[in-house]
Amino acid sequence: MNLGYYLSGYADGEGCFCISFNKSKRHRFGWDIRPSFSVSQNRDRAEILHEFRRYFGWGTIRPDRSDKTLKYEVRSIRDLVERVTPHFKEFPLISSKRKDFEKVAEVCELMMKQEHLSERGFREVAKLALKVNSGGKKKYPRLEIKI
Amino acid sequence: MNLGYYLSGYADGEGCFCISFNKSKRHRFGWDIRPSFSVSQNRDRAEILHEFRRYFGWGTIRPDRSDKTLKYEVRSIRDLVERVTPHFKEFPLISSKRKDFEKVAEVCELMMKQEHLSERGFREVAKLALKVNSGGKKKYPRLEIKI
Repeated sequence: MNLGYYLSGYADGEGCFCISFNKSKRHRFGWDIRPSFSVSQNRDRAEILHEFRRYFGWGTIRPDRSDKTLKYEVRSIRDLVERVTPHFKEFPLISSKRKDFEKVAEVCELMMKQEHLSERGFREVAKLALKVNSGGKKKYPRLEIKI
Repeated sequence: MNLGYYLSGYADGEGCFCISFNKSKRHRFGWDIRPSFSVSQNRDRAEILHEFRRYFGWGTIRPDRSDKTLKYEVRSIRDLVERVTPHFKEFPLISSKRKDFEKVAEVCELMMKQEHLSERGFREVAKLALKVNSGGKKKYPRLEIKI
């Protein structure tokens, strides 16, 4: 079977391309920026999460915060750039979630090049991040970034 | 692109193979049996529902009861037997949702042959229906069918 298309279809429904910002004294400009790709599923239907893990060869499967579901997640910038991004370029999403993917991919690319450590790069990353998931259920608090 | 695998992947996450029973004086044994295949999505990401409609060449897209989402649905027994079932046999689901599909497909096959109009067939349909979605969020009230 063509697992690439199957997993993209699944991710189009249940996947999340996210960028979280957490306050951190250890990080440049006071923010820890974490792009991620994740898919969640009820425990009794977790087979698909293991397919994702096998397919990408990386990522973690762990209970979601609610503890009712399991979540497969890739957070390493290198894996996002080298595995997740090429996959979704080869097997593109049909829905408007594709726009979230494109922004997260762009942020990962910038972070891979360490550009988020400059003021200009950080602003660019923050601008892209604010557009991600803006239409979804999960609303991130509006960042007040002063640098 | 290989849309068949993509749509099966999507349906593995967001699709629903259901069988509803509604009390009805017009139907044999007092129950209107309605198997269906449906996928829901937020309005701003409805492209995928139109892909399903184009792909199967049939089915309706309408606001879900909550009116916050749109739902693509196939309820015609003939379309379920002739279009939906062959698709999910060619592009099978990976997760345990496959079991729901198999039971719904079996019910549709029985109904297509009008077997649900006999007492034996009706009992068989009811037995299969009670197993569908038994692990999911939507719990149908336990039927007390006396025939």
